[in-house]
Amino acid sequence: MDRLPTVLDVGRAAGVSRQTVSNVLNSPEVVKPETRARVEAAIADLGYRPHASARRLRTRRSSTIGIRLDPMANGISGSVHDRFLHSLTEQADAQGLRVMLFTATDPQDEIRQIRRLHEGSDVDAFVLTSTMFGDPRTQWLVEHDIPFVTFGRPWGIDDLNDPQHRWVDVDGRTGLRLATAHLLAEGDRRIAYLGWPSPSGTGDDRKQGWRDEMELSSGLSKAELDSLQLGVEDGVAEGREAIRELIEVGIPFDAIVCASDSLGLGALLMVGPDIPVIGYDNTPVAQAVGLSSVEQPLDDVAAGVLELIVQLFGSRDASTDAGAGDPRHRLVEPRLVVRHRRIG
Amino acid sequence: MDRLPTVLDVGRAAGVSRQTVSNVLNSPEVVKPETRARVEAAIADLGYRPHASARRLRTRRSSTIGIRLDPMANGISGSVHDRFLHSLTEQADAQGLRVMLFTATDPQDEIRQIRRLHEGSDVDAFVLTSTMFGDPRTQWLVEHDIPFVTFGRPWGIDDLNDPQHRWVDVDGRTGLRLATAHLLAEGDRRIAYLGWPSPSGTGDDRKQGWRDEMELSSGLSKAELDSLQLGVEDGVAEGREAIRELIEVGIPFDAIVCASDSLGLGALLMVGPDIPVIGYDNTPVAQAVGLSSVEQPLDDVAAGVLELIVQLFGSRDASTDAGAGDPRHRLVEPRLVVRHRRIG
Repeated sequence: MDRLPTVLDVGRAAGVSRQTVSNVLNSPEVVKPETRARVEAAIADLGYRPHASARRLRTRRSSTIGIRLDPMANGISGSVHDRFLHSLTEQADAQGLRVMLFTATDPQDEIRQIRRLHEGSDVDAFVLTSTMFGDPRTQWLVEHDIPFVTFGRPWGIDDLNDPQHRWVDVDGRTGLRLATAHLLAEGDRRIAYLGWPSPSGTGDDRKQGWRDEMELSSGLSKAELDSLQLGVEDGVAEGREAIRELIEVGIPFDAIVCASDSLGLGALLMVGPDIPVIGYDNTPVAQAVGLSSVEQPLDDVAAGVLELIVQLFGSRDASTDAGAGDPRHRLVEPRLVVRHRRIG
Repeated sequence: MDRLPTVLDVGRAAGVSRQTVSNVLNSPEVVKPETRARVEAAIADLGYRPHASARRLRTRRSSTIGIRLDPMANGISGSVHDRFLHSLTEQADAQGLRVMLFTATDPQDEIRQIRRLHEGSDVDAFVLTSTMFGDPRTQWLVEHDIPFVTFGRPWGIDDLNDPQHRWVDVDGRTGLRLATAHLLAEGDRRIAYLGWPSPSGTGDDRKQGWRDEMELSSGLSKAELDSLQLGVEDGVAEGREAIRELIEVGIPFDAIVCASDSLGLGALLMVGPDIPVIGYDNTPVAQAVGLSSVEQPLDDVAAGVLELIVQLFGSRDASTDAGAGDPRHRLVEPRLVVRHRRIG
């Protein structure tokens, strides 16, 4: 065996369960002498040595959580992932759980890293972010029975009623509804949506929130709504250009709601202070330039992720899905932060 | 090769035994240089990454670096620490080292956490940030012979010639000199400094950079310089108020250099687009509002920290300070990013 032997290997060799091996290691007095002898022989045969992580696992599932940290990409919205990581680390620490970071170049590489960390028993559960349609990572993790929770739902599957895996997400659809309803209440009617091209799990969800509210309360026709719905790549320059084109083709609008603060800042730079703009993520940049924005309550997301991880451990320890009756997801409500622009 | 390459694969490719590969990985000094070069080439060719747990057992070292992650405090400058963490994780991963996070409520608590992680052999070396005068953490770590490197120098001690410990820092004094010299060259003469109250290791260092350059080239008297030197707590509101007071007492100024982007944004909001302002940290907020700023090259800082950690391990493995002749610190040069404000 090239990899290190695990408790499972010892159990297999001795013809006992993983739990029995664990008992021999931690509470030998509860194990029958013959069984104990067999397990101890298997431990010696295989050269099984509990190392630091294993010891921690034995004494208490003091568990280490692995999470991928990406290179800094988008200076504006990248801070959302960082804020989540801060909150997760702080709350995990308070529960005696640790957070280990790793990096990966793409989803396949992330799977390789996860396998490596899992096989080494260095990490007990993984937190995945930025879920996507047909996510190869979550499919692989489910197949390999590796504990994980995602920040982001399994897009394209029946998320709420029959989730493939445990997840926490922010209800972006409600976020955009809140933003759109606020502007409608302020008297704006022709509210444009500046978002990303379809298909995009997150993007289409947010867009639908704007669309729901506009169909309900704006009185605009379907064709008018289509003309106010913009989809471009994320970025300040992209947002600015999209709004420039909207102005150039002569489609009137009273206000803009956006799928991100990057797009929101781009829109703001184009229209100036007279047209209300609402971004998404309530980043430090939105705060600095006085851009209204939809805030993701990341403390609640982190708390939800940890709850589900603990639920997952509970169900595995009991060898049955103890948490079967509990909801396997958390859909967190965002909140709208309205501010007056201080620059512009 | 679909599976991950193993030590055996490396040995086969280099024409050496598994033990020799292991020696190259763990005690390279016992391997002949030619053999070592051949093995290292095979490692690079195959993309071999040492199985962390196996390596951990062999060396009794977990190859894990611990770093404290604070709750998100300052939305503007807090991103510097995050950007450093991203860079550190990415570069550590490429070297087969891992990053484990922990939190702490204060320096004494940080010491407790470090002791706990060190005693459990879960973490081999620590990276400390935000060093301060008379730092209780570094003193304790030195006394207990626990490997660590700081991002931030041991303020108040002879840092460069006789450092108490290994450290990497950005030369803030040079950063402020660059900013001040740029404004002087543009024709500004009465350049105000907006920084923090003394004593502050980082703050006093940056202030001195402004002072050096002004004494050299501005032609202003000592008393005039004193009147242009402001020290307030960090924050947008604080920066704005400090500049408001400077205007109210009627002290004329042509430009402002700042110890942070928070202060810089506050100054910018007060003076508007006609007075040049230069911040510090080149945060996403500075980029978004078009504030010129001094950038800390955090990739270089992370590379320096890892170099010193590896140096530290080398010296400990050899039971003598093998790195005694090598510099035990890295002072990294910042760069000035000049931009025209796009808002305001």
